[in-house]
Amino acid sequence: MNNKVLLIGAGRSASALIRFLAEKVRTQHWRVTVSDVSKDILDKQLSPYPELQGEALDWHPHKMPEHFLASFDIIISLLPPHMHFHVAELCVKYRKHLITASYISPEMHTLHSAATQAGVLLLNEMGLDPGIDHMSAMQMIDNIRKQGGKLTAFRSSTGGLIAPASDNNPWHYKFTWNPRNVVLAGQGTPAMYREKGDYKYVPYHRLFQRVYPIHIDGYGEFEAYPNRDSLHYMPLYGLQDVETMLRGTIRRRGFCSAWDCLVQLGLTNDALLIDTQNLTWRKLINAFLPYDPQKSVEEKVLHYLNLAEESHEMHCLQWLGLFEDSPVYAPSSRMTPAALLQLLLEQKWALAPGDRDMIVMQHEIEFELDGKRHREISELVVEGEANGITAMAKTVGLPLGIAAELLIEGKVSLRGVQAPLHAELYEPALQRLQAYGICFTHKKETAAL
Amino acid sequence: MNNKVLLIGAGRSASALIRFLAEKVRTQHWRVTVSDVSKDILDKQLSPYPELQGEALDWHPHKMPEHFLASFDIIISLLPPHMHFHVAELCVKYRKHLITASYISPEMHTLHSAATQAGVLLLNEMGLDPGIDHMSAMQMIDNIRKQGGKLTAFRSSTGGLIAPASDNNPWHYKFTWNPRNVVLAGQGTPAMYREKGDYKYVPYHRLFQRVYPIHIDGYGEFEAYPNRDSLHYMPLYGLQDVETMLRGTIRRRGFCSAWDCLVQLGLTNDALLIDTQNLTWRKLINAFLPYDPQKSVEEKVLHYLNLAEESHEMHCLQWLGLFEDSPVYAPSSRMTPAALLQLLLEQKWALAPGDRDMIVMQHEIEFELDGKRHREISELVVEGEANGITAMAKTVGLPLGIAAELLIEGKVSLRGVQAPLHAELYEPALQRLQAYGICFTHKKETAAL
Repeated sequence: MNNKVLLIGAGRSASALIRFLAEKVRTQHWRVTVSDVSKDILDKQLSPYPELQGEALDWHPHKMPEHFLASFDIIISLLPPHMHFHVAELCVKYRKHLITASYISPEMHTLHSAATQAGVLLLNEMGLDPGIDHMSAMQMIDNIRKQGGKLTAFRSSTGGLIAPASDNNPWHYKFTWNPRNVVLAGQGTPAMYREKGDYKYVPYHRLFQRVYPIHIDGYGEFEAYPNRDSLHYMPLYGLQDVETMLRGTIRRRGFCSAWDCLVQLGLTNDALLIDTQNLTWRKLINAFLPYDPQKSVEEKVLHYLNLAEESHEMHCLQWLGLFEDSPVYAPSSRMTPAALLQLLLEQKWALAPGDRDMIVMQHEIEFELDGKRHREISELVVEGEANGITAMAKTVGLPLGIAAELLIEGKVSLRGVQAPLHAELYEPALQRLQAYGICFTHKKETAAL
Repeated sequence: MNNKVLLIGAGRSASALIRFLAEKVRTQHWRVTVSDVSKDILDKQLSPYPELQGEALDWHPHKMPEHFLASFDIIISLLPPHMHFHVAELCVKYRKHLITASYISPEMHTLHSAATQAGVLLLNEMGLDPGIDHMSAMQMIDNIRKQGGKLTAFRSSTGGLIAPASDNNPWHYKFTWNPRNVVLAGQGTPAMYREKGDYKYVPYHRLFQRVYPIHIDGYGEFEAYPNRDSLHYMPLYGLQDVETMLRGTIRRRGFCSAWDCLVQLGLTNDALLIDTQNLTWRKLINAFLPYDPQKSVEEKVLHYLNLAEESHEMHCLQWLGLFEDSPVYAPSSRMTPAALLQLLLEQKWALAPGDRDMIVMQHEIEFELDGKRHREISELVVEGEANGITAMAKTVGLPLGIAAELLIEGKVSLRGVQAPLHAELYEPALQRLQAYGICFTHKKETAAL
């Protein structure tokens, strides 16, 4: 039996996968080892699971324990994305399958031929986003194609949020994922998408104004802003001719207009180094406003951002304490506004004990078939568990575990560098995810063309 | 006599300096050689001046003709800024003085001790901006200090514009300097300045809204936007305690609000690569606007930018042809909006035959003295000549020539890496610039404290 599995990386997002692997050891007699550079993390994560082996090892690219790796059949890597390539090289060398939840990097692509020749699968993008988004989208797309439908619009939105029971601040948001990525979200190249045949580009300073509403049955109102390069997904999904192609990031309704205030002020800037000595939040806000001795900082913000005094946005800014003459928390003497903001938000948006997170995903697909216009909406909501296993850990980790299971069962013939875009993978994977509470609901509408 | 001068770089901005040097050969018996990598440029620039030697030579950093350079006493370099360091190294090695109009780079700074020991002056920032701005500002500042005044505010603004007689478009602007720098102006780190004791930071998307008015007697109304890092000039000018420190870039009144429309749309973005096939300006503008089938592109722009139909800004956008369904000029299949915009502006803002440029500079200094509050304003306006010698070439080139003259006359004792911040240099230089029509006018106001 080729059932020796090595998981590399046992951090916070590994918890659901580790539980999954432990269950497979108990019920399917898999042999599983979990490795991490930190013995403390290993001890903590593995303590409930005596059936799992732990190995504290350094996976630094230049000293990876390759002979150790070579003693397994399947490698699951939750290492930082830039380290996957080095693991993948070893997997090709020793003919082992690799599964990751990270985007396929350009250098990973270069291993495709060698991996194929070696009979090895290097399966990437097998988490949530990328991962479950690919699989659920391709299932809908392939089904419509099989019926002979012509796809005209594809909109897909995902968000990592806070569960309703833990939602107790005016932003309706807490950090459930990398805070720095949230603070810098959307910076760099303008967002790109397609709408009714037109290409659309949104520069950063307009991004959080270009939101669209999302309703999720049972969970109420959300909104989403365009997420980087949606056009990239057109060839990936075989939708080169689709007139509308938009991927977005979901937040609770009202988040984006409040976040846009921080963008407009300049507080998300990560290039400007500011002297933090004697700096207070009120002073920092004032530094981004024009000089006007007749107005208070609050009045200047209202005027500068064209806000009403009693507005939701102003309430959100006040809740963060931005108008208070309290010192910024600054571990360095010179920091960027984005870094200072991140430290503030890490306090204000921290998960409290018992808080649970929530993953929301929605696909909306329009297509023409038999002279009619059809619309299908698929929705996924996953909440974190009371025991501390987050929805993020479940939706990122379980697809990795299920992919390993399918490989062990000999049900995957794909080889080379792959993402889960093929029915052979997504059909059984989506099916099995349901047993873990990761279930899409589907709605359909039809109208005359 | 140490009067052998080598000018390296004979491009467009060298014309006034070349005329100055030719005059010195005729009247002062200087021996002057002008070198450039292009023989065509040399032939063209030197044809009116048979008294000047021309030498077509490659000044590439790794093959500089150092023995040739060593046969002169003073080197004036108009090479691109990154090449000055290599020339400077040779100047130290062969004990020759160097004069440039470029900012002192960090690597140039490293030559200070060696140059001082060698008895060599490496004089940088000896053009217009930096150059004349430093000299005229330091003259005012030192005079006020000598009287015992306490400086409270320093505002300095400079612009390269078009002369009134050639000003015939609604932007009141034509390219008289590097178009790419104009299109990308203000991008990168937010602008920084100080106002009434408060530090101020302006992110790019708000920069062209943070304008202040400027009036120049005889020339009318201008405006200026904050120019990069004004705070950097506080230690440079010995103004560490000044409450207001602001340097700005001058445009004609109304330019900034129109340019801000291009910024808001995203047309100045230089990161986004767009497919230029079949692209028209109307399509490109539309790509930056939200989808709305009920509105024309014009109506969407009015709404998106909150403009009135008959506004000056809309007139400026229309004058550029941005709403026309005419193909963009695109020499490559994928280009950034900023690159496309630059090519359009290079047509629309091109100098016509006979057009003359104009340099405008204004310093406004406030200080306290003898229980009174004083305000001094210095203004400089230089227009280009009808013969094609531009105001830019005069104001950049003549300070370089005059610095060489002062060195030859033995009137400069400064050594090492320097900028013209010292009376020894700025007093005679400003005095001699007057003979060439580069004259500041001065106004004073006094009020009770």
